[in-house]
Amino acid sequence: METKRPSRRRFLEKSVAVAGLATAPSALAVSGAAAEAPPPAAIDNNSLDAVLYGRRSRFVTTTREVEGSSHTTAPRIRPTPQRPSARTPLADLVGTITPTSLHFTTQHYYGIPDINPDEHSLMIEGLVERPLVFTMNELRRFPVVSRICFLECIGNRPNPRGETVTGTHGRMGCSEWTGVPLSLLLKAAGVKNDAQWVIAEAASGGRHTKSVPMAKALDDVLVAYGQNGEPVRPDHGFPLRLVVPGFEGIYNVKWLQRIKVVDQPYLSFQEHSRFLTPNPKTQRDSYDFGPSSVITRPSGSQQLSEPGPHVISGLAWSGGGAVRGVEVSTDGGRTYQQAELAGAVLPKAHTRFVLPWTWNGEEAVLQSRCLDEKGQLQPSEAEYARYWNLTRGQLYGTIQSQLGHCNWIQPWKVGRDGKVTNGLAPVDVVVDVHG
Amino acid sequence: METKRPSRRRFLEKSVAVAGLATAPSALAVSGAAAEAPPPAAIDNNSLDAVLYGRRSRFVTTTREVEGSSHTTAPRIRPTPQRPSARTPLADLVGTITPTSLHFTTQHYYGIPDINPDEHSLMIEGLVERPLVFTMNELRRFPVVSRICFLECIGNRPNPRGETVTGTHGRMGCSEWTGVPLSLLLKAAGVKNDAQWVIAEAASGGRHTKSVPMAKALDDVLVAYGQNGEPVRPDHGFPLRLVVPGFEGIYNVKWLQRIKVVDQPYLSFQEHSRFLTPNPKTQRDSYDFGPSSVITRPSGSQQLSEPGPHVISGLAWSGGGAVRGVEVSTDGGRTYQQAELAGAVLPKAHTRFVLPWTWNGEEAVLQSRCLDEKGQLQPSEAEYARYWNLTRGQLYGTIQSQLGHCNWIQPWKVGRDGKVTNGLAPVDVVVDVHG
Repeated sequence: METKRPSRRRFLEKSVAVAGLATAPSALAVSGAAAEAPPPAAIDNNSLDAVLYGRRSRFVTTTREVEGSSHTTAPRIRPTPQRPSARTPLADLVGTITPTSLHFTTQHYYGIPDINPDEHSLMIEGLVERPLVFTMNELRRFPVVSRICFLECIGNRPNPRGETVTGTHGRMGCSEWTGVPLSLLLKAAGVKNDAQWVIAEAASGGRHTKSVPMAKALDDVLVAYGQNGEPVRPDHGFPLRLVVPGFEGIYNVKWLQRIKVVDQPYLSFQEHSRFLTPNPKTQRDSYDFGPSSVITRPSGSQQLSEPGPHVISGLAWSGGGAVRGVEVSTDGGRTYQQAELAGAVLPKAHTRFVLPWTWNGEEAVLQSRCLDEKGQLQPSEAEYARYWNLTRGQLYGTIQSQLGHCNWIQPWKVGRDGKVTNGLAPVDVVVDVHG
Repeated sequence: METKRPSRRRFLEKSVAVAGLATAPSALAVSGAAAEAPPPAAIDNNSLDAVLYGRRSRFVTTTREVEGSSHTTAPRIRPTPQRPSARTPLADLVGTITPTSLHFTTQHYYGIPDINPDEHSLMIEGLVERPLVFTMNELRRFPVVSRICFLECIGNRPNPRGETVTGTHGRMGCSEWTGVPLSLLLKAAGVKNDAQWVIAEAASGGRHTKSVPMAKALDDVLVAYGQNGEPVRPDHGFPLRLVVPGFEGIYNVKWLQRIKVVDQPYLSFQEHSRFLTPNPKTQRDSYDFGPSSVITRPSGSQQLSEPGPHVISGLAWSGGGAVRGVEVSTDGGRTYQQAELAGAVLPKAHTRFVLPWTWNGEEAVLQSRCLDEKGQLQPSEAEYARYWNLTRGQLYGTIQSQLGHCNWIQPWKVGRDGKVTNGLAPVDVVVDVHG
């Protein structure tokens, strides 16, 4: 913890500066902002527009990171105007709720539709007693539930070439999702005995579909129309999306227009082409993401100002339920200390951890590991590779969807100059499903 | 619960509509939005700007409600361009997290400053061993905590003239606040033995200050720089504000620049003029807001489409801790049923409740009451008035700050035509501290 004792001179300078505020003629003069290089656009915080719908400070300019700006572009998948995918800028965020405007979004070729909610409906059909169609207003007459949970793309992977935590883990976010439990809609339609799966279909140009096991559909899946209090945004599926807590991102079908109840899983185009071509070595026995965590501060490409007290902070999560604990190592995994969980601990939600740390100015390797409520412990890269009997080349030379959930530990190296870089040993080839 | 069985004709119409999607030439054509009266501005959801920082659908146009637009304007307090206060549009929101852009904001005469965070600092002084000054970067080297909690202005009051729930209860919101525990900063400065209070001071033109008891300052108060994952917005105190969970909104000093440790509470200008002129009848024995709740759907000025299944939904909260339960009455308080808590239940946070309800088409009076973990039960208007020995004229003819926390029950009346109106009996005069 910092117990900085400023010099008397510095204290007096500040006192004078603060005392001066009493006679400052205007709010603008108080900040002294005008004397600094100002950000591009001046904003009138007191304008009617800003009062009606609030805005960020002009000094806050964080954005999402557009996919394709990474060096890990996969040869056969390139960004286009029709595929506006972008990652969450994790290193700039605090707490656990991802600002909706900065929440990652993965798009597949067909762009984001501009749907009028008054024209949108959801059909439940297939192996049901009563096929049903619901307008948005009809859905709002069903009991509603909110769940704070993470959403992660299987494209997330600790990665020796990731320069920042956004590069390695930026394909995830955490929101409060609000909607109707899918179980209620299925009950209303009357699921037949031989029904084993549901297929969720999007209204986007590509009609993305995904099969979800019936046990999960009847558990905690939501047909969501709200995200962080307001209607789901267009890039997240306005006006309706599926939310499948703990499962891979691709299950969370956006622009949801149809649920078909079926007897077996069907491989859709996306599943065929990129997402369910299982590698026999890593055939998954579970759809839930495993226990995971990553340090967001300090993280790749950040700079420690000086030796002394700092705080290590990051996110932990697990598709298996709540985070039970997070351990942090500052010596590359030789020893670990228990971090503090610094906020609400909710099942299948991002959980913030912090550990005060005094940097002695020497090289250090920072990394975290998550233990979830099922007792599952996040593995190191070596442990993961050994378990699946894979080489490092296979770990990083294979598309993620053929590997399974890439939840191994991401170390960050702090140099003597305070510069933070990726702590994983270099590899020749990294194939990235999302370029 | 709704178990609507659409007619075969309607089902077929929808089927045709859905089948047609397969050959729709573009995403825009899918929605059919172009055929409807379109909202003012067309937005390209696929534009680079929208990818960098996400936006709402053009079909979502909810805004905050500017203070002063209510009929309850107090005679001596009028809105000006320098006082851009606005309420949360509660009826349009779902879940518990208030979208930051729609979170209420109360401003006192001096407008919102435009502070450069690199120029901002926080001073801790007064009855301390070591006066300290922290830059924003120095604060970020302290351990950090996130708390999801509500913020409510004492100006909130169930009110016979409130046409909507925004009018009666819109001066509140719930966010995930992130920052340094004030206790750590006080510890670093070394609080002297005779210190009993701290005074928090804002960097705004008015230099708003507020006294906080030391016991609270050392408990769960945050010096917050984050709200819902991103930096606190200008209208909420960028770059730094105090967050005092469970206390009245005015304690949560925005644009925080100074904490002075003192031996007694000092009445500042705002406190003198409007906020701490206690009425002997309602002398408060606690700073915590009492248990409260309000139905947001259906609520004033909404319209039930037809008899049949509906869902009653609302928010409950208490400065005393977590919500233990919420009861809902549909007969004006004669009988109550237990509602379901439909999401995370966190201390001093908004908690969403829902109750499925079948409207029989007759007149109904809907209301809710909150029981908190301390065993405190939200009173009816009559119970509140009886307890404090006040007339209804005094309840509504007195500025809220002289009354104490106005946490009595707000009923909504559903007419035979489905129109929802305020269920409190009319009164002659309502004096509103925030006009």
